[in-house]
Amino acid sequence: MTERPSAGSFRTFVSTHRGAVEDALLGLLPDKSAQPARLHEAMHYAMFPGGKRLRPMLTLLGCAATGGALQAAMRPGAALECLHTYSLVHDDLPCMDNDDLRRGRPTCHKVYGDSLALLAGDALLTVAFEGVAAAGGPAVQALAKAAGSIGMVGGQVEDLAAEGDGAAHTIERLRWIHDHKTGALITASLLVGAHAGAGGEDPVLEEVPEEVLGLLRRYGDRLGRAFQIADDCLDMTGSAAELGKNPGVDLAAGKLTWPALVGLEKSQEAATALAEEAAGLAGQVVSAAAEWRSVARSSLDGAAKLLQDVAIYTVERRT
Amino acid sequence: MTERPSAGSFRTFVSTHRGAVEDALLGLLPDKSAQPARLHEAMHYAMFPGGKRLRPMLTLLGCAATGGALQAAMRPGAALECLHTYSLVHDDLPCMDNDDLRRGRPTCHKVYGDSLALLAGDALLTVAFEGVAAAGGPAVQALAKAAGSIGMVGGQVEDLAAEGDGAAHTIERLRWIHDHKTGALITASLLVGAHAGAGGEDPVLEEVPEEVLGLLRRYGDRLGRAFQIADDCLDMTGSAAELGKNPGVDLAAGKLTWPALVGLEKSQEAATALAEEAAGLAGQVVSAAAEWRSVARSSLDGAAKLLQDVAIYTVERRT
Repeated sequence: MTERPSAGSFRTFVSTHRGAVEDALLGLLPDKSAQPARLHEAMHYAMFPGGKRLRPMLTLLGCAATGGALQAAMRPGAALECLHTYSLVHDDLPCMDNDDLRRGRPTCHKVYGDSLALLAGDALLTVAFEGVAAAGGPAVQALAKAAGSIGMVGGQVEDLAAEGDGAAHTIERLRWIHDHKTGALITASLLVGAHAGAGGEDPVLEEVPEEVLGLLRRYGDRLGRAFQIADDCLDMTGSAAELGKNPGVDLAAGKLTWPALVGLEKSQEAATALAEEAAGLAGQVVSAAAEWRSVARSSLDGAAKLLQDVAIYTVERRT
Repeated sequence: MTERPSAGSFRTFVSTHRGAVEDALLGLLPDKSAQPARLHEAMHYAMFPGGKRLRPMLTLLGCAATGGALQAAMRPGAALECLHTYSLVHDDLPCMDNDDLRRGRPTCHKVYGDSLALLAGDALLTVAFEGVAAAGGPAVQALAKAAGSIGMVGGQVEDLAAEGDGAAHTIERLRWIHDHKTGALITASLLVGAHAGAGGEDPVLEEVPEEVLGLLRRYGDRLGRAFQIADDCLDMTGSAAELGKNPGVDLAAGKLTWPALVGLEKSQEAATALAEEAAGLAGQVVSAAAEWRSVARSSLDGAAKLLQDVAIYTVERRT
């Protein structure tokens, strides 16, 4: 734990587990040729090749940081990615952001038409719950809360409402939007991982204690905010090639963003401060988990380092 | 069990439990004033006042017929209704069926706009899984399978593809569409009810045995087919006042329907035959359940009668 946090170890973690995550995704989705083939093609088109797969990686980390076996978090992690991808597919629709570029390719509706893209999104949201079911009732509930009307969907609604409504642009409102639109699902990724890793012979291990969940929530809260502020900054500084989507669209749409409110430099400072705050909580998360599981704290040192490093990664990334 | 099946006892069952189902729906949805209020208003608008609430009633019946306590099926039943309603909201969107009348009122997007209706549908689908979580992992899986790309959404895709594609209109194709678009969720309603009612001190009672589930599936299969053929007929014979939606739209859209293929009379005969087939399976369902629970078969006679009567109801109804 003396090593300075750097995004490097998280990048290594991603390359190590990327293949298994892709396999879990393929295992969760029906085959591309399953009837109706056109629908399954659209779902696969939206899912592969994917982006950073950040959410499944966070599911794996939530599992590892609470002492669970990574394997248990693979399918639930894939579920998180399906859920995230559905939100992108619906967000890109003409009646929403009307975007034509995503993950470096034409958006799903540009290729398959609006009705099939709508239904592919619906099916990805649905299959997400099939994938998370094995992680148990509390995991299903955590995901549904985070993804629903008082979570991600609620955030999307307020985000749309804030467009062009310049008079009501405040940091408080923006924080609410970020916490719901992005933060809730990032935190849920971690929580689902923790739930997925619970269970076992000893009844004490069947349920993740509220103390551990609460610390993960605090950590995820900071991580989610840092991530979304960094995202807002990238929309201004990144290129389409780096982002795989059109940059500058937030600004053009009159969206409420951090850089629009306080400028680019202050936004980047805020993101870094939040990432450091998150990193500072990593030790507490694993200590509480070690106590719950009655294992040596040192057995979770590697996981704690990863929680620190992913926080740094969220603000250092260029994509 | 000597009483002749009639829709009457099911209608009584519906009036008895309608209030509790509405309460469960209100308990599952966030309050109308919860932020973002406009989203929650749109969700409530789509849900209240509702239609027949057939799916939650079937969840209650699936629970009762397998010897469970009705109370355990209330929230999961509400979940089924949220899922059904999301499918109506998305189906009515301009990029889908582009309907302007539903449950006797302007459709959700006519009142709240396309983007909010899309997101309200997404949120209703999501909250459905929150509601079904308490019924356990197998219930979540059954619902996700039935509602997803190899279930309801798959059926919607094939239904859209069949529009105007007259050359490929066959009974086999139509049956596939009905089984997926409507039947899967009707069967899932029954299965979720059975899962919700499982559990208890005795580990044998924790999981519904495959034999019981298989019989419920066979029953639900016939019920779903009867229901959808009757629906196709009502689209031709009903009025907007009775249906709460515009009649004749299937015909106008060149949809693949039973009456279009074999005429109204033969369709009604087919629906009745399927309803009677379903009714004939009711006894087997409750006998298997009674054996699993080690209770007297006669304790489930009332539930068997209801399974018979709802089958008759599906083909006798005018709405």
